[in-house]
Amino acid sequence: MSVDQLLVDFDAGRPAALARAVSIVENQRAGYDTLLARLHSRVGRAQRIGITGPPGAGKSTLSTQLVTAWRRSGLRVGVVAVDPTSPFTGGALLGDRIRMESVALDEGVYIRSLATRGSLGGLSSATRLVADVLDAFGFDRILLETVGVGQSELDIARVAETTVVVLVPESGDSIQTLKAGLMEIADLFVVNKADRPGADRLRNDIELMLGMRAGLALKNAPAHHGVDLGSIANPGKAARLAAQQAAPDRWVPPVLRTVAAKGEGVEEVTEALTRHQQYLDASGERLARRLSRWREQVIEVAEQRMRRRVWEHPEIRDFIEAHLPQVASGETSPFAIADELLRRAAGVLTTVKP
Amino acid sequence: MSVDQLLVDFDAGRPAALARAVSIVENQRAGYDTLLARLHSRVGRAQRIGITGPPGAGKSTLSTQLVTAWRRSGLRVGVVAVDPTSPFTGGALLGDRIRMESVALDEGVYIRSLATRGSLGGLSSATRLVADVLDAFGFDRILLETVGVGQSELDIARVAETTVVVLVPESGDSIQTLKAGLMEIADLFVVNKADRPGADRLRNDIELMLGMRAGLALKNAPAHHGVDLGSIANPGKAARLAAQQAAPDRWVPPVLRTVAAKGEGVEEVTEALTRHQQYLDASGERLARRLSRWREQVIEVAEQRMRRRVWEHPEIRDFIEAHLPQVASGETSPFAIADELLRRAAGVLTTVKP
Repeated sequence: MSVDQLLVDFDAGRPAALARAVSIVENQRAGYDTLLARLHSRVGRAQRIGITGPPGAGKSTLSTQLVTAWRRSGLRVGVVAVDPTSPFTGGALLGDRIRMESVALDEGVYIRSLATRGSLGGLSSATRLVADVLDAFGFDRILLETVGVGQSELDIARVAETTVVVLVPESGDSIQTLKAGLMEIADLFVVNKADRPGADRLRNDIELMLGMRAGLALKNAPAHHGVDLGSIANPGKAARLAAQQAAPDRWVPPVLRTVAAKGEGVEEVTEALTRHQQYLDASGERLARRLSRWREQVIEVAEQRMRRRVWEHPEIRDFIEAHLPQVASGETSPFAIADELLRRAAGVLTTVKP
Repeated sequence: MSVDQLLVDFDAGRPAALARAVSIVENQRAGYDTLLARLHSRVGRAQRIGITGPPGAGKSTLSTQLVTAWRRSGLRVGVVAVDPTSPFTGGALLGDRIRMESVALDEGVYIRSLATRGSLGGLSSATRLVADVLDAFGFDRILLETVGVGQSELDIARVAETTVVVLVPESGDSIQTLKAGLMEIADLFVVNKADRPGADRLRNDIELMLGMRAGLALKNAPAHHGVDLGSIANPGKAARLAAQQAAPDRWVPPVLRTVAAKGEGVEEVTEALTRHQQYLDASGERLARRLSRWREQVIEVAEQRMRRRVWEHPEIRDFIEAHLPQVASGETSPFAIADELLRRAAGVLTTVKP
C-alpha cells in the first residue's frame, strides 16, 4: 500500500490505518519519514500527559481512571505504554494491558505498547514520533505511561507536556533516595493508595522538598511571619505559598491523594491536569516545551541520516575494517583514527546525494 | 595533575591513580581520550567476564565467590558493577556493594560502580572504556556485573568476552518469557540457589531451548538413533550432543548448578569459564569479539566528535533555532530541514580544525 492510500484511510479515521501508521513509525520502516512529514501539519492539537512512577504504584489503574473520566467528557484518548524491554521482566506489560481491559474495547480509545528501542534516538524518540501520529489522527488526549523501570521514567518528561509522578505511601521510606531528577520533571505528584498508612507523611515530605526548591528559587522571599500552625509544621508549604504569591505565573506542583482502584481523588487529578494545561498556555510554557521537543527531533533526524550515509558508505567501512587489526594489536588507538574518519565523513556527506 | 603525572602514578600501580583514571574516563572529562590513547597499547591482557540475570538471582554472591576463587589463584580482579540508575530504585546498588564486603578490602581487588549513562554511547560504552582502564592497570580478570534491570543485561555481552547468565529455580516459571536475546548472549548458564525446588526442571528447560537452537543450526544432523534414556527424556540434550559431535569447535553453553551462598558449584563455574576462555583462543572467537568491540568504539568516538563539532557550531545552532517556529507551527517538518542541515554539517566538518 502506498503512503498516499494509507493517508486516505488515515484521514477517514480507519483504525487499521492508524495501527499501520504507528507500526511504520515505531519501527522506522521505509517511508516513515515521508509519512510523518505528510502528517506534520496536523500535529499539535492533543494534550500530552506523561505518567511515571515505581513499579506497583498503580500507574495503570490511575491511567484507566483518567481515560474513563476523559471518555465521559467525550474526549478521544490515545495511550502509549512505554516498556524498555528487560529480558527478564517481559511479563509486566501484558498484566498492565489486562488491567486496562475495561477501556481497551472502547472505540474512542487506542492503546499501544512500545517495546522496541528504535534506531532513532531510543525509546523516548519512538514515543515522541508515535505520539505525533496519534495527535495527527485526532486524539484529544495522549497518555504516555512508563511501564518498565530505568531511565525511561525521566525521559518521559521530554515527550509529555504535563508529567505526573505517581508514588505510594511505601515510597516514603525511600523519598530521600528518589533522584533529584524526579522533582524536576514532576508537574503533578499523586500519592496513590492513599488509604494506606504513611500517605500524609509522604505528601508532607514531597511538599517539604518542593518548598526547599521553591525557597531556593525565590530571591528576596518575604520572611515567613504570621504563617499558620500548619505551615509551621510544614515549612515547605509555607515557602511554596510565598513563592506562589511572589510569582503567580510560576507552577508549583500540587501533591494529590488518590485511591485509584476505588476512583477516589481521580476528579482532583483531572482538574489539576486541566489547570496545568491552562498554565502551559498562559505562561508560554507550552510553546517552549514544543520548541524543545521539535529541536530534539530535528537533531535526531539529521543525526540518523548523517549516521546512515557515513557508516554505510563503502569507503568509510573499508577504512575502519582496514584499521581494526592495528587497533586490536595496540599499535593504533581508536582516538588516533577518529579524526581521519571525520575528514572522510565530511567528504562523504558532501558528495552523496540526499 | 597532568596526564603525564597521572600515567607515572598509574604505572607505579597506585590505587589513587587508578581511581582517578576511572573517574576521568567514566565521566569523559577533559583529556579522557588522551589518557585512553596513551593506555591503549597495554589493553588486551585481561579476561572480561560479564554476569547478568534478574534481580535476586544472586549475581553479587556468585561474583564474590568467583573473585575469592581467582584471588586464591593469585589473580588480580577488577569488578565493574553496572547500574542503569532508575530514579526509583537507587538503593539496590548499595546493598550489592555491602554483600561484596568480604573481598572489597583486598588490595588485589578493585570494585567500581557505574551509574552514569555517559555521553559516548551510553552505559555499555562507559563500561567498555572503564574495563579498558582496569585492563591497562594490570588486572587479570575483569568482572562486569549488571545490577539494575533493563536493556543493560543484553548490552553486557557486547563488552564481555564470556557472558554468564544467572537464573534461579523460580525463573523456570517464566522461562518462556525470557527474551530470545538471552539465549544468544549466554556462554554459560548458572542455575543458582539450586537447592530450591525446580532447579532440575529449569536446567532441562534451558537445555531443551539450547538444543532446539543447536538442532536448528545443525544441517544434516544425524538421526537420533540409539540415544540413551536420559537423552530421550531430554531431546534438547541429544540434539546438543549431536551438534557438538558434528562441530567440535562450536561452543554449546553448559548449564551449571550452584548454591553460591554456600560456595557449592563455584569451582565448576570457574572451570567452565577457563574452558570458554580456551575456546575463545582456539576458535579465533576472541579476536572476532575484540575486533567487534573496537569497531563499536571507533564509531562511537568518531560520532561523538562529529556530534560535538556539528551541533555546537554557531552556524548550525542558528539555523536550527531560526527554523523551529516554522516546525512548531506545522509549516515545515523536521524532515524537510534535515537535508539542508546535513549540507551545512558537511561544510562545518570540512572547515573546523580537529
